[in-house]
Amino acid sequence: MSELISEHLCFGGVQRFYRHASQAIGLPMRFSVYLPPQAQTAAVPALFYLAGLTCTEETFMIKAGAQRIAAQLGLALICPDTSPRGAGVAGEAEHWDLGLGAGFYLDASQQRWATHYRMQSYLTELHALVNQHLPVIATQTGIMGHSMGGHGALVTALRQPALFRSVSAIAPICAPTDCPWGEKAFQAYLGPDRQSWEQYDASCLMRERQTPFPAGILIDQGLSDQFLATQLHPERLEQACLQAAQPLTLRRHMGYDHGYYFIASVIEDHLRFHYERLSA
Amino acid sequence: MSELISEHLCFGGVQRFYRHASQAIGLPMRFSVYLPPQAQTAAVPALFYLAGLTCTEETFMIKAGAQRIAAQLGLALICPDTSPRGAGVAGEAEHWDLGLGAGFYLDASQQRWATHYRMQSYLTELHALVNQHLPVIATQTGIMGHSMGGHGALVTALRQPALFRSVSAIAPICAPTDCPWGEKAFQAYLGPDRQSWEQYDASCLMRERQTPFPAGILIDQGLSDQFLATQLHPERLEQACLQAAQPLTLRRHMGYDHGYYFIASVIEDHLRFHYERLSA
Repeated sequence: MSELISEHLCFGGVQRFYRHASQAIGLPMRFSVYLPPQAQTAAVPALFYLAGLTCTEETFMIKAGAQRIAAQLGLALICPDTSPRGAGVAGEAEHWDLGLGAGFYLDASQQRWATHYRMQSYLTELHALVNQHLPVIATQTGIMGHSMGGHGALVTALRQPALFRSVSAIAPICAPTDCPWGEKAFQAYLGPDRQSWEQYDASCLMRERQTPFPAGILIDQGLSDQFLATQLHPERLEQACLQAAQPLTLRRHMGYDHGYYFIASVIEDHLRFHYERLSA
Repeated sequence: MSELISEHLCFGGVQRFYRHASQAIGLPMRFSVYLPPQAQTAAVPALFYLAGLTCTEETFMIKAGAQRIAAQLGLALICPDTSPRGAGVAGEAEHWDLGLGAGFYLDASQQRWATHYRMQSYLTELHALVNQHLPVIATQTGIMGHSMGGHGALVTALRQPALFRSVSAIAPICAPTDCPWGEKAFQAYLGPDRQSWEQYDASCLMRERQTPFPAGILIDQGLSDQFLATQLHPERLEQACLQAAQPLTLRRHMGYDHGYYFIASVIEDHLRFHYERLSA
């Protein structure tokens, strides 16, 4: 399937880093996998984690402390990179919030980006790849993410509910069509037609659905998050969920900021949330 | 006391990064502190963690997942940097295992290094500093470390048992006078007189003691550790402990390597080990 770059025993399971030739992206891509000890004898449910701006496939595995609880539950963790690497698009390395490390989990339509910046299609490819080659159960896959990756998780779950059966997010960008990060990225990747942006806005997508996830959605948000007021807009998604009769648990946490110390503090709840729904 | 660089809520406690003017080093130094929620109302026991080669005061706090259990127990975590920064010693940035990020927790005697490379004295200074300004209990302080930091923890505890009441290590350099990392560093910092090296070799120091830690020492070692055969020599310390009638729990773990995925897998046991002894 892929080239195994490195492997580390961790909580009785294995932490692996892979590289493979992606069809969707047209370039080599890296991803990471944590397989819990239970995967040695039987296939297990899996959770995709989509990371935020500037992160790679390593960030979550290093910083979140998720393997401990994944090993307890028997849940595989899958982390893609946050953008193509080596596309060679002019200017792709100039901004930390556009291009490299900032793929926004969408398929770009604008010529400059459209060849390689196809992260939404890539998630479908990666889902198929891991299900073909690793001991995970294709029909028991969930998705979560942080910040840009929270946006990615919500949008991907709403667009591809057949692939991802449970969804949660930490400090997600909930209305990218109406915040500086999202507007900058969507303008570049999708062009000036704002209507076309809505296919990648979780709050817009949610409004058109009827209870897409009957078992609920979990979102955690820190109230000292430096990006909360300008970029994240959880209240938009909250309203959209109300409109869509979508059960949502949106927990607002006093004092927590946007970083991995917050993610680590709530990650156990997210893994348990997904495991319960996937194994039900 | 010190300048607070940043603060992040984490598992109900606070993760802080400080900078201060160190007397012992003669330069600004950084360190990190995790204060568990219990420290809001009462002073708590504290555990120093000494990191390995190339690390900083951030590494352990980011990668080990220790705050979760520290918050449960009510244990503060203190992490110094691994060397002076900005000493300007010629060549200090040329080798990853000497100079910057490689202070070996000793006081250098060789002229080139002796002014600033005084990490052993620095630990005493930091112990006093945190006990003066933070809600920790001076008489309930333990010390642990990884690799070079495991060497540092063992040596410091043996040299300063009045300051550090419990000690443990993960994949420590157990006999630095007789391994390539240690010989290179000790030659540079301490000069050609090998006798003088023994004051910073845990196995040598242990042989001269009689049960310095009656409540035992905990060491974890991965058997797939790429540095085990050449650099670490846990069997030397094991023998020295036997000679000193020092109870030692040396756990050898099949398949684990030298990295933080191993540290994360055993860190809970170390925090519990210290907490039990410090709060007894």
